[in-house]
Amino acid sequence: MAPSSERLRQLLGVRHPLIQAPMAGVQGHELAVAASRAGALGSLPSATFSPQALQTELQALVAAMGRAGEASLPWALNFFCHAPPGPQAADQEARWCEAVAPWSREAGLAPPVPGGAARAPFSDALADLIEPIRPPVLSFHFGLPAPHLVARVKRWGARVLSSATTVEEARWLEAHGADAVIAQGWEAGGHRGHFLRPDRDTAGQTGLFALLPQVVQAVRVPVIAAGGIVDAATVQAALALGAAGVQAGTVFLCCTEARTSAVHRAALAGTVEAWARTPRSPRPSPADRRAPWSTAGCASRCLCGTGCHPSRWPPVRWPACARRAKPQGKATSRPCGPVRTPAPAAPCRLRRSWPSWRAGLARIANGSSGWPTARRQ
Amino acid sequence: MAPSSERLRQLLGVRHPLIQAPMAGVQGHELAVAASRAGALGSLPSATFSPQALQTELQALVAAMGRAGEASLPWALNFFCHAPPGPQAADQEARWCEAVAPWSREAGLAPPVPGGAARAPFSDALADLIEPIRPPVLSFHFGLPAPHLVARVKRWGARVLSSATTVEEARWLEAHGADAVIAQGWEAGGHRGHFLRPDRDTAGQTGLFALLPQVVQAVRVPVIAAGGIVDAATVQAALALGAAGVQAGTVFLCCTEARTSAVHRAALAGTVEAWARTPRSPRPSPADRRAPWSTAGCASRCLCGTGCHPSRWPPVRWPACARRAKPQGKATSRPCGPVRTPAPAAPCRLRRSWPSWRAGLARIANGSSGWPTARRQ
Repeated sequence: MAPSSERLRQLLGVRHPLIQAPMAGVQGHELAVAASRAGALGSLPSATFSPQALQTELQALVAAMGRAGEASLPWALNFFCHAPPGPQAADQEARWCEAVAPWSREAGLAPPVPGGAARAPFSDALADLIEPIRPPVLSFHFGLPAPHLVARVKRWGARVLSSATTVEEARWLEAHGADAVIAQGWEAGGHRGHFLRPDRDTAGQTGLFALLPQVVQAVRVPVIAAGGIVDAATVQAALALGAAGVQAGTVFLCCTEARTSAVHRAALAGTVEAWARTPRSPRPSPADRRAPWSTAGCASRCLCGTGCHPSRWPPVRWPACARRAKPQGKATSRPCGPVRTPAPAAPCRLRRSWPSWRAGLARIANGSSGWPTARRQ
Repeated sequence: MAPSSERLRQLLGVRHPLIQAPMAGVQGHELAVAASRAGALGSLPSATFSPQALQTELQALVAAMGRAGEASLPWALNFFCHAPPGPQAADQEARWCEAVAPWSREAGLAPPVPGGAARAPFSDALADLIEPIRPPVLSFHFGLPAPHLVARVKRWGARVLSSATTVEEARWLEAHGADAVIAQGWEAGGHRGHFLRPDRDTAGQTGLFALLPQVVQAVRVPVIAAGGIVDAATVQAALALGAAGVQAGTVFLCCTEARTSAVHRAALAGTVEAWARTPRSPRPSPADRRAPWSTAGCASRCLCGTGCHPSRWPPVRWPACARRAKPQGKATSRPCGPVRTPAPAAPCRLRRSWPSWRAGLARIANGSSGWPTARRQ
């Protein structure tokens, strides 16, 4: 194993330098526990649960894996730490809903309306809530919480991670206490975790292939690659570009341990070709209708005109696919990255699946080498 | 060497599976000859030369390297094959100029005006012009020319390449006669070569990390990775993702054999952090002013609102950097990818430079293996 991977492995207490990305709305403790039991770092997305639901999830995590310092398995909680939307948020949301209304009309669904659930940023109150259970790792999105909160979680032994979408953000995270930095490429299916620049334009985000090596050169802490990680080959490529480890989300969406909805799983089975098409296209083509629309990716990509922060996406749903699968239902969000996922209907237990992935990780763990062979000739 | 790399090597007649990307406006035959002599495939961007200038370039190429079938060294010509702009082009250009005017004002330069030089697509007349010199390889951008033209260039022995920005485009190119497909990631500094979808939105383009493996799975012809390729590590990563070879452009911009302007070279020496910021940002920050703006990348990224095809970018210049380097001068375009380049002032001869790059290629050529070590620990 490369020294940086070994360092990350020890930092997180994991067998493999692999993080199961926290994915709000599609998972609870089950996936995190399965990921940690499989040798990765399981994560719970904690920004969207109600306080009560979060308590239930936390109890389940602690029961399965233990607290920081005495944990039998490593695990992570993920929180947002954005600045809550200001008075202009309502106007932004209205612009946003207006921008995507044509797609709802096209699909014969009610137009979107402002008023989505706001995510609360990490706070003293949340720190009070989780301190008794001492999560071994805390990962943040949209920067880091206030310095006294970073210091507080570190005092109970937690490791601190956060995402960078630019070199500048990676340097900032390192300087403000991140123990490792997640380089979030343009390909990532989740919220775009940018935080330093005031603009909401996504054109400033670079693909992982160019971002990752520059982040690796810019910081001393281990760098984790996120975006497009799906198998042994992509892990190999990320390590070739200097990553100490990887974070993957979309590829776990179809696990039985995930709470991904049936319509979402069905959408993931479609072609991913049109994944990143945005509401700006005048009319989605029939091919687009088969594709799993990514609210995360799409939302990131069309925020520029609305100023709406990704932490506060209005309840806008991409209706095309949902209409096919669930003609009468409410359309749902279906975040994903532009990658292929396992079959949506088949049971897909993390410990037993993706032999190529695990083989790749095992190769890394064993320190064995081998020039990657082309996948097809 | 992986079988697919060996196949590409034989297809192109190169020593290394590396293509020097054709870069209009910053190179002539000198860079192509140097690249081919160094074991790569040198390319001449042929869409922007006047017929007379093109003749001069072609004579120099043939004199140095020979014709298809009898060439001592392989080389390529690159042409556009877009549909020429229709009557709506003037309106699109006006919208485009309006969109970027604030940046000119900010830099104290005259606002952009419509009327940029149109690029002619590949045609019978151009085929007549080049047939006598039989270029061994023809690479196209924005799809492929009409079937009779593809058949014609193949009759004289030319290999045909073109770029795909989606899986769908890659399949189309293979079905229409491409001998190899260039998977152009979001990171690529050059013109975004999309051609199948009518919309000009760039959000549909995926980073190389996710695009490349899916293209490799979708087609049988060799796949060449483009976007972010700068050294041995990035070559290794591309091959891990299934590429048979790589195409690189930005990293050659500072070669003495390139015709890159002094202001462009100076811009490349700045931070590349802000590379992909677009005119949509309300105000470029001081940091942005140090960055080499990419007309190619930026233009691609803000076309969505104008409908203007990238083959017909108006003469819009990103003035910030030019203003610093050349206060009185006309601002110039400075295409580049989001990667670091060698020092702009130092002589940089292709055959003698980038030891890590060549070492990486040599490792591939020798078939030796080795798990990539992290760049820093």
